[in-house]
Amino acid sequence: MLETEHAIYVGSFDPMTLGHEDVVRRGARIFKRLSVGIGINPDKEPLFSSQQRLELMQEILGDLDNVTVHCFTGLAVDFVQEQNAAVMLRGVRTLSDIESEFTMTLANRTLAPDIETIFLMANEQYSHISSSLIKQIAKMGRGTAASKLKQFVPQQVIAPLLAKYS
Amino acid sequence: MLETEHAIYVGSFDPMTLGHEDVVRRGARIFKRLSVGIGINPDKEPLFSSQQRLELMQEILGDLDNVTVHCFTGLAVDFVQEQNAAVMLRGVRTLSDIESEFTMTLANRTLAPDIETIFLMANEQYSHISSSLIKQIAKMGRGTAASKLKQFVPQQVIAPLLAKYS
Amino acid sequence: MLETEHAIYVGSFDPMTLGHEDVVRRGARIFKRLSVGIGINPDKEPLFSSQQRLELMQEILGDLDNVTVHCFTGLAVDFVQEQNAAVMLRGVRTLSDIESEFTMTLANRTLAPDIETIFLMANEQYSHISSSLIKQIAKMGRGTAASKLKQFVPQQVIAPLLAKYS
Amino acid sequence: MLETEHAIYVGSFDPMTLGHEDVVRRGARIFKRLSVGIGINPDKEPLFSSQQRLELMQEILGDLDNVTVHCFTGLAVDFVQEQNAAVMLRGVRTLSDIESEFTMTLANRTLAPDIETIFLMANEQYSHISSSLIKQIAKMGRGTAASKLKQFVPQQVIAPLLAKYS
Amino acid sequence: MLETEHAIYVGSFDPMTLGHEDVVRRGARIFKRLSVGIGINPDKEPLFSSQQRLELMQEILGDLDNVTVHCFTGLAVDFVQEQNAAVMLRGVRTLSDIESEFTMTLANRTLAPDIETIFLMANEQYSHISSSLIKQIAKMGRGTAASKLKQFVPQQVIAPLLAKYS
Amino acid sequence: MLETEHAIYVGSFDPMTLGHEDVVRRGARIFKRLSVGIGINPDKEPLFSSQQRLELMQEILGDLDNVTVHCFTGLAVDFVQEQNAAVMLRGVRTLSDIESEFTMTLANRTLAPDIETIFLMANEQYSHISSSLIKQIAKMGRGTAASKLKQFVPQQVIAPLLAKYS
Repeated sequence: MLETEHAIYVGSFDPMTLGHEDVVRRGARIFKRLSVGIGINPDKEPLFSSQQRLELMQEILGDLDNVTVHCFTGLAVDFVQEQNAAVMLRGVRTLSDIESEFTMTLANRTLAPDIETIFLMANEQYSHISSSLIKQIAKMGRGTAASKLKQFVPQQVIAPLLAKYS
Repeated sequence: MLETEHAIYVGSFDPMTLGHEDVVRRGARIFKRLSVGIGINPDKEPLFSSQQRLELMQEILGDLDNVTVHCFTGLAVDFVQEQNAAVMLRGVRTLSDIESEFTMTLANRTLAPDIETIFLMANEQYSHISSSLIKQIAKMGRGTAASKLKQFVPQQVIAPLLAKYS
Repeated sequence: MLETEHAIYVGSFDPMTLGHEDVVRRGARIFKRLSVGIGINPDKEPLFSSQQRLELMQEILGDLDNVTVHCFTGLAVDFVQEQNAAVMLRGVRTLSDIESEFTMTLANRTLAPDIETIFLMANEQYSHISSSLIKQIAKMGRGTAASKLKQFVPQQVIAPLLAKYS
Repeated sequence: MLETEHAIYVGSFDPMTLGHEDVVRRGARIFKRLSVGIGINPDKEPLFSSQQRLELMQEILGDLDNVTVHCFTGLAVDFVQEQNAAVMLRGVRTLSDIESEFTMTLANRTLAPDIETIFLMANEQYSHISSSLIKQIAKMGRGTAASKLKQFVPQQVIAPLLAKYS
Repeated sequence: MLETEHAIYVGSFDPMTLGHEDVVRRGARIFKRLSVGIGINPDKEPLFSSQQRLELMQEILGDLDNVTVHCFTGLAVDFVQEQNAAVMLRGVRTLSDIESEFTMTLANRTLAPDIETIFLMANEQYSHISSSLIKQIAKMGRGTAASKLKQFVPQQVIAPLLAKYS
Repeated sequence: MLETEHAIYVGSFDPMTLGHEDVVRRGARIFKRLSVGIGINPDKEPLFSSQQRLELMQEILGDLDNVTVHCFTGLAVDFVQEQNAAVMLRGVRTLSDIESEFTMTLANRTLAPDIETIFLMANEQYSHISSSLIKQIAKMGRGTAASKLKQFVPQQVIAPLLAKYS
């Protein structure tokens, strides 16, 4: 029996951004339980290990009682079903974002018709934040990278992120 | 105190389509309470009176215990707040749909920062259905309009709709 | 039995533009027969009467042996079927054009699954031409309207168009 | 001889919004001279008379020495040429905005190849503001309309706007 | 002399999907001859060899008398001209699809002005199918991958596809 | 003190296209000074060395007295500030272009609120030209690549470009 009050939010979170954090906090207000799934792609070399991402997210989201963080491999819909959740929560920032989200949602409906996908629109101040932009700032921002990154990632991410490029 | 498990779905529903019905049924599975608001625009001459739309929707959705149908005037965010709801539910069909939805959501956030807007993507078989298309079929479909309309509107809408154009 | 080598191109052509003419000429090279359908909308007051549009198009396209021009009322798919054609030809200019075209194509597939819709992309020099732009130029272009219109409509359209606004 | 350091910003400004004001102020920093053109469409009944719009804009923009405000009829490109300006300045808020802007720019290039069009992207806090939204709030916002409108229009617009609907 | 009743459909088909098959079958109804071109990109390591893709497509499309399958290297427009065909057939699934298709069509018009490009819109049930999605399911779908893939690829593709990842 | 009459145009220009050249020439008419910045990405292996790109651009743009060409590493906004410029000039070709431009502009505003970004729309005849398309033609165009490339890149680029693939 799927739990409709239980939503799943998946991503690679490599690294987690202020935009991701905002979606989790807003989702946690709407649903009784929110499980975050960190997708592990065995073919890609991540910047942060899955263990490191898990610990960072758990620290950043530690004040939210109804949120748990997990790692998973395989398809997102399989993870949602293993968690007995009925709802996938997605954050969308731009129109090209939502176009690929729509395509993925159609595929997921074919794979798992019982799972409902729900979209939250990014807050304006986060709509331009992407993990690739953050890596670019960390790498090329030179002496001012730390102060720049404050507007893009949670405070806890800055030091480990800069350490990757020093 | 806003109720997060209470969502509002507004529209003009002139007339209600299979796509509208689908969004209500899916929303009613996700939220404990779903209130449908039929927006009354004093400047537009509707096809169906607000009373007629209310009765049609109540009949079509009568099997859903956690759904109520209301008429309202004024801004949608004011209706949401009068209902003490914390969530607006929106169905989106196409990219141009979502662009105007995003714009409206940004405006609503300015007007009522506490209200969260959530999007459901239309099911594939309903993504092309609009009230204006339905009126066009009803008016120009001639002898075969009734059988054509079955794929676009709930059964209960067909007769009153055709009556408007006969 | 539908004829696959017979395509239909419908529109309101109020008035015909260089973009419309280009789509017809290109379509006439691809298909054995091309029938142009001028849609008559009884609810809208056209700029040109349907008879005037028919005569203008017949004159402009008179050199194309495999093209015929017709007026029709009702739904476009019904017109296509009355003509025993299997293919609807559509010209698309912009992305917002194609979004509404996709929606209409999905509706038409529901109404008439046997009819195939085919899209031609507008030539670059015509992609910005719309009937509403042309009316605006005709009305507001003052003394230079005729020379401006040469880049937007077939020569035969200019004089009758300007006559509407003088 | 066109002046490249002279830009034109046209619109109907019925009424002027905070987004319009922002574009003018930013444009006035980039160009030596900026002329605002209030387009008068003889076919549309405006909310504010052209005289009223002119006076409001002159008052709101009075602190900008290099900005002048004018009314014009006819095509925007003709107004630009009458002003001897070489640049049209356009504010864009959304993707559907820019699509129609691109189409209009292509048309303007055909009509006046010497005129360059330049786009400024709306600031995030203004990207959802449109004149039609503002009218809706003024009309339907009831007792709280004035406080709501502060986030959408310059202070000077609020009282005359509410007066239109009282 | 180009043959207008002869269309070309190119792609990498690595692997062929139900969406590709649908476009071929619909194209084969519209045109007298349809030649499928499997593009060989010497810089990319394909999942299936060109020989394997050729054999799979020939088997899957074997019932269509007017369809032939070929491999080619170089630019698609050169392949179309070598085949003496006048028409390129393209399937489009989403708006971002069609944007890149439009760009490619403009480039192809510059390279080969005689070639006409024609677009078919994907059927709703196939619009979310992409080769990259299929590879993801094959790789990450675990024990249920075969049953999942039935909704995405022709039956003949499933076993060889799964063999690539076992 | 930022100079508002000084604009910066950055890119990787690997290689420079006719579209890039067009944006520079149009920008040089609008602004008193235009500085071109060739971004050096230490993680990507370019086709042309930064020195080679610098020399090609200087040769192609040598007739423009108010244009200088530079190489830079790091973030574009830092380069703009080092140049004391107040304006970033961007060329946009397609809607998906502008969507990523909008996202980048929002990020740049966060990083450097004083810098204004201005967009020029590509001329129609260049809107389909991308560096990746050019590389594809150079590599796969065989004997006719040189004549094909004339419509895509400045004359000075053709020989060095073909040399890369011979």
